[in-house]
Amino acid sequence: MEIYKTIINSFRIVLAIALMPPSNVRAQMQRQPTYLSHEVQADNSVIFRVMAPGATSVAVFGTWPPNLQYAIPMTKKDSVYEVKVGPLPSGMYEYRFMVDSMFTLDPRSSEVTRDGAIVENRLMIPGPLADIIDVKQVPHGQVTALWYPSPTLSGERRMYIYTPPGYEKDKKRYPVLYLLHGGGGDEDGWVSRGRANYILDNLIASGKAVPMIIVITNGNPLMPAAPLDRSYSFQQTAQGIGSMASGKFEESLVKDVIPFVEKNYRAVANADHRAITGFSMGGYQTQNITNANPDKFKYIGVMSMGLFASFQGANYNKDAHVKQLDALRKSNPKVYWIAIGKQDFLYNSAVQLRQLYDSVGFKFTYFENDARHDWNAWRLYLSEFAPMLFR
Amino acid sequence: MEIYKTIINSFRIVLAIALMPPSNVRAQMQRQPTYLSHEVQADNSVIFRVMAPGATSVAVFGTWPPNLQYAIPMTKKDSVYEVKVGPLPSGMYEYRFMVDSMFTLDPRSSEVTRDGAIVENRLMIPGPLADIIDVKQVPHGQVTALWYPSPTLSGERRMYIYTPPGYEKDKKRYPVLYLLHGGGGDEDGWVSRGRANYILDNLIASGKAVPMIIVITNGNPLMPAAPLDRSYSFQQTAQGIGSMASGKFEESLVKDVIPFVEKNYRAVANADHRAITGFSMGGYQTQNITNANPDKFKYIGVMSMGLFASFQGANYNKDAHVKQLDALRKSNPKVYWIAIGKQDFLYNSAVQLRQLYDSVGFKFTYFENDARHDWNAWRLYLSEFAPMLFR
Repeated sequence: MEIYKTIINSFRIVLAIALMPPSNVRAQMQRQPTYLSHEVQADNSVIFRVMAPGATSVAVFGTWPPNLQYAIPMTKKDSVYEVKVGPLPSGMYEYRFMVDSMFTLDPRSSEVTRDGAIVENRLMIPGPLADIIDVKQVPHGQVTALWYPSPTLSGERRMYIYTPPGYEKDKKRYPVLYLLHGGGGDEDGWVSRGRANYILDNLIASGKAVPMIIVITNGNPLMPAAPLDRSYSFQQTAQGIGSMASGKFEESLVKDVIPFVEKNYRAVANADHRAITGFSMGGYQTQNITNANPDKFKYIGVMSMGLFASFQGANYNKDAHVKQLDALRKSNPKVYWIAIGKQDFLYNSAVQLRQLYDSVGFKFTYFENDARHDWNAWRLYLSEFAPMLFR
Repeated sequence: MEIYKTIINSFRIVLAIALMPPSNVRAQMQRQPTYLSHEVQADNSVIFRVMAPGATSVAVFGTWPPNLQYAIPMTKKDSVYEVKVGPLPSGMYEYRFMVDSMFTLDPRSSEVTRDGAIVENRLMIPGPLADIIDVKQVPHGQVTALWYPSPTLSGERRMYIYTPPGYEKDKKRYPVLYLLHGGGGDEDGWVSRGRANYILDNLIASGKAVPMIIVITNGNPLMPAAPLDRSYSFQQTAQGIGSMASGKFEESLVKDVIPFVEKNYRAVANADHRAITGFSMGGYQTQNITNANPDKFKYIGVMSMGLFASFQGANYNKDAHVKQLDALRKSNPKVYWIAIGKQDFLYNSAVQLRQLYDSVGFKFTYFENDARHDWNAWRLYLSEFAPMLFR
């Protein structure tokens, strides 16, 4: 039965004609040689290739490990630019090409993730870290996109909820991890790029983490949802909320999100069964939320973010901060975890945070690696943080 | 409080330095003028702009209405290429730029959708059709991504389930619509590009459609999930399933998907409460499934697809087909709907399908518009089909 092949070929031919570009472009396209755009070698180096016959400068941009520049110039061979990158440690990398001054996705890959305004291809390099984030032959939790009311932010907002494998069939109550994204991001990031659901599937399957619900919000007060899920026809958020600096998102997490989750899901509704973590802006919000609400979370993680004093300048009030930390210490959190990479541009702010905590006797555990300020760090940090929770 | 602004600006500056391209590229980038990349005019025409100082040929590609070519050449003004497209009818369009021989996304938009291997920006043009697919101030259903077992296709596969507003709180049972995608697509398409969830939210809120569950599968036998959700470390599908032509997906829908849905969701488990539709390849599969299982669905929609005889050639067995149609007619479907656009390259195959049905007395209703073979058609067709269901 060649029926489908025939159908598909008919589609392709007709669509190819319909989509045909102007003749001068077509002439270039017809010269396209056969090549692989991203070829992982035995040593886990990768040969990247992109055809750009008229270009004068081509580079591959990626979230490489810190020993490499983000932008790696490519060399022209006939009409195809090429470069070998790595060997790369195992994991998931984001990349795209810059052809002269234009970013372009890899035209030969359909593996695309978006983080805020940045859209890139992804590449998996085999090994231990890739195994943590891969889709494995284990029971999978469910990921649901839903809208919840947020009186604090004057409108409906979108979140993702991960329910662990078995949640739909059993009657148990589960602990909840609140997972916050960084500046410029939105609620899609921890799923599309952060792989939070697959990381937890794998940790739960191996017994390294206990089954838990994960709640992924949109941390931008003026942005109720990711770009594709925002209305074009009405202003989804009322005026007067203020910018990110308003602290309104932090307030809404405590006043709106937690009650919604604990009413609508089988969550255990107490501090012993609530955890919160976030990176960068989300690490700042994590501190704001837990400093202001010392009785709400027994598990706290601050990723790739340090003492906000270094950003606040004259606005920073150390006495008020220390007073909050006193209250938080008295509530006796079971885990207070700080994680940052040595190559992170916020590294010094984390040093300052640790110095402050040490000076006032506020206990924490600390994780440091060689990471930059990117998803390579955050996926790893989640895989380190989740196993410490609810034990 | 300027704290956040300061933080965000710090992030931006440091990231900008870290991400800095080679100096020759940088020189070009620094010359970037201020411009809007897609500016909707009062008459709903759109001015597209993209900066490409070194390019010799630039076009904007989009799913415009049939009176326009897909590729519209742009004209250079200083270093920015520009063109005015339209006026455009209301709705959602997919577009991207071609700069010399390279496709590039709009660097100034974060509204990006993927359909199979094609990644494009989206643009909303106000008006009635946009209102159908927009995020409105109405109750929203939930969209869940989950994995289900498919013995027929030898592995776990991913699907989306839309549950209508209220499903989580009430105890009612709901009818189910099975929604199939086209060739080259996957289970993401009807959500990301098809807006099926928002279309139903809006139809249900206005009373035009009854609340229903929607099930969106991946119709490719050898592809258990969309690209980001496929494992890189193991073969997710067993050998021996065969290509799309095997009919195994159609078999799995009946043997695996329907029982899974009716066991795990509050579905009404009978033919009166099952509907199925799909476009293109999914319209072919809809015919295969309902021809072979005349007792399973009382509501059937064939979108942008016609008589497969025109593709099957010597393989087509008219007698067998007519025999199946006899059985289907005897089961008395409440709706058998055929929808196609006059500009669709499969239009003639739909003429042949109608001729066959007329010749054997098989009743159907017919919807024709001026569409091509694209999502402008399929979003509209869903909004026309769903109101006919379960009445």
